[in-house]
Amino acid sequence: MDQKIRIGICGYGNLGKGIESEIVKNPDFELMAVFTRRKPAESLQIKANVPVVHVDQAVEWKDKIDVMVLCGGSANDLPLQGPEFAKLFNTVDSFDTHAKIPDYFEKVDSAAKSGNRISIVSTGWDPGLFSIIRLYAGSVLPNGKTYSFWGKGVSQGHSDAVRGIKGVADAVQYTVPTDSAIRRIRDGETPELNTREKHTRVCYVAAEEGADKAHIEKEIKTMPNYFDEYDTTVHFISREELKANHNGLPHGGNVIHKGTTGKGNNHVIEFSLKLDSNPEFTASVLLAYARAVYRLSVKGERGARTIFDIPPILLSSLSPEEAVKDLL
Amino acid sequence: MDQKIRIGICGYGNLGKGIESEIVKNPDFELMAVFTRRKPAESLQIKANVPVVHVDQAVEWKDKIDVMVLCGGSANDLPLQGPEFAKLFNTVDSFDTHAKIPDYFEKVDSAAKSGNRISIVSTGWDPGLFSIIRLYAGSVLPNGKTYSFWGKGVSQGHSDAVRGIKGVADAVQYTVPTDSAIRRIRDGETPELNTREKHTRVCYVAAEEGADKAHIEKEIKTMPNYFDEYDTTVHFISREELKANHNGLPHGGNVIHKGTTGKGNNHVIEFSLKLDSNPEFTASVLLAYARAVYRLSVKGERGARTIFDIPPILLSSLSPEEAVKDLL
Repeated sequence: MDQKIRIGICGYGNLGKGIESEIVKNPDFELMAVFTRRKPAESLQIKANVPVVHVDQAVEWKDKIDVMVLCGGSANDLPLQGPEFAKLFNTVDSFDTHAKIPDYFEKVDSAAKSGNRISIVSTGWDPGLFSIIRLYAGSVLPNGKTYSFWGKGVSQGHSDAVRGIKGVADAVQYTVPTDSAIRRIRDGETPELNTREKHTRVCYVAAEEGADKAHIEKEIKTMPNYFDEYDTTVHFISREELKANHNGLPHGGNVIHKGTTGKGNNHVIEFSLKLDSNPEFTASVLLAYARAVYRLSVKGERGARTIFDIPPILLSSLSPEEAVKDLL
Repeated sequence: MDQKIRIGICGYGNLGKGIESEIVKNPDFELMAVFTRRKPAESLQIKANVPVVHVDQAVEWKDKIDVMVLCGGSANDLPLQGPEFAKLFNTVDSFDTHAKIPDYFEKVDSAAKSGNRISIVSTGWDPGLFSIIRLYAGSVLPNGKTYSFWGKGVSQGHSDAVRGIKGVADAVQYTVPTDSAIRRIRDGETPELNTREKHTRVCYVAAEEGADKAHIEKEIKTMPNYFDEYDTTVHFISREELKANHNGLPHGGNVIHKGTTGKGNNHVIEFSLKLDSNPEFTASVLLAYARAVYRLSVKGERGARTIFDIPPILLSSLSPEEAVKDLL
């Protein structure tokens, strides 16, 4: 085996822990250090036997890490951290605030070029694998329509939004795709579906002692952007039940493209994910793209890329010859 | 719109006709000519209003065509035609004799380099889109297992094999995946499945007047490589019924990857195709890769490539910025 690809983890939430757990499945990687904003850094307990380093000291590691996997959130961490780290390291991240991706891409691109590094932004499964399928499907069958469904799965953003309501002790929100809508498309229809027809939302809420449940339910169902355009069901349960039955982070979804060729021949392309652990799966995608980042950096490529720019072979631990023999 | 990509079709069977019908869905393409081995070439009736040219005159078109789409068969046409045309043209093909792909790749690679051209070999859906999914899935979840199922669909090779039996007037063979096997994998099992457990074969046969049907059925079911490892059902029907009910070329299939992360979290990645017309869909894939071939040729790239080497964005008629905005 050639020298291993030296990986750093920046941020030790669910995603960072996923990188730590999945990196060992890839014998060509070696975890070098975990970076954190916590002070003192040493107070962070991690599982891997590697140094924990404060982000302010990251610059000292710039020649000891081949790819930094940025595991911060899109709302508060990555907008600053992405460009800053892209100056010092080759990076991969899962920036997923869709409307802000072009701006984020520009900033990371400039930073990476100024630091002579390469970054792949916005990987994961959506944006990520789902995006790639939308691109392939639309390119192959331009006379067609693509649908994306998410769930059944826990939306951390929506769960957080419910937890922010006064009187809510804890909550979990599931996004649930509408089976009948999926069936119609699979059966060859190309319906126009509004937001309400594609997904429903189901909340499990542990209320605080004496809280006004009717008020909480109304607050949830009418919350702009998050819930007002959906049919939402709210279940009040105990904290114990919430912890016992809703502590996982499953997710998944479907991309379905219906297209037509010739004299009305129909074709359905479908891609689906059924995930027990959203963060561990997302981490697995980031690691595959970390391999691509490393290979492109060795070839001297610089600047920002999206997953659309990356040849599939660069994700694989197989050589091109092995991949042709075993997988083509 | 920039100058259109000038396309040639070589071979006017089902696949060539598919290219002719689907090229009009892509406004960035222009069909220039159809090439045939038929003599005289003019005796070939085509639908498009373009010249029909004998393959021996193809060299005269080498500066008038940006990408030649090779629509010949893998058994008899492409092994010679692929390398020959790769000297003169940028090409894309659907060579699918799996064991011979590495050798074919080498020959096309040498030819393309000597002619200062670029070729993508073995595109379509399997090899093709299915291969890409196998590569992505295995790269993301290395601790896992990938299954490929084909059908329900018409296998032209198997249909031809049945038609070759004495006493058979006409025949169509369907490959049928075993639902129970697919269900087990979707539900999270990783079974070891032998050939017989994954697919069954169903033949519709029109026998000649007075033919020994019992003998035909035995010949089919025991045919080495084609049928002996499968459970096969043979239905004898009239020529009229065969023509009326089995004249399409539907196909499809599933790639399912089951992988594990963390402490036993399971993930299922599935990609499926449901195709009314195998040749029209395959043609659509070849056209998307023809766009990639053209773009790589303009960048000065030379030699042979597989689909694993091609960044997804090169297949799309969208600009990178549009793709990020609309699809990422």
